[in-house]
Amino acid sequence: MLKPEILDPQGQAVQRALPRLGYQGITDVRQGKRFELELEGPVDDAALARVRQLAETFLANTVIEDFTVRVEENAGENAENEVVTA
Amino acid sequence: MLKPEILDPQGQAVQRALPRLGYQGITDVRQGKRFELELEGPVDDAALARVRQLAETFLANTVIEDFTVRVEENAGENAENEVVTA
Repeated sequence: MLKPEILDPQGQAVQRALPRLGYQGITDVRQGKRFELELEGPVDDAALARVRQLAETFLANTVIEDFTVRVEENAGENAENEVVTA
Repeated sequence: MLKPEILDPQGQAVQRALPRLGYQGITDVRQGKRFELELEGPVDDAALARVRQLAETFLANTVIEDFTVRVEENAGENAENEVVTA
């Protein structure tokens, strides 16, 4: 997601459109990116650290964006799912 | 996120670049959008249903995209935070 101090024209456009579309009471909208990575093998601390580094280096532009890494178990598959939002 | 059966060229481009950048063992990358909505008042079932409808109608293109709605408490502010990912 864009850092709070960075202007987000896409999010603002959505927010301004909402009352017109019948949706009141939404005080802020921010738009960002989301990556789902599927990993081979277990999502242990080492794998997670690597994904964090990857997110920081290549997926997010940390000058203007924050990111969080979240693990999601992927039921029905061997590979676990990992979600990075930038 | 794009539905699993929909081709995701952005995610594929990221995935193909990773080994070159020194990241092995990532079997799939999908890229999608993420919206953070801030709501006035409590995030009760009614508010959540409204946000789901909003996501389905305006934020996501449900022909090609799935979405999930997740509630995030926003510590330090009165308004609770709501995350929609498309």
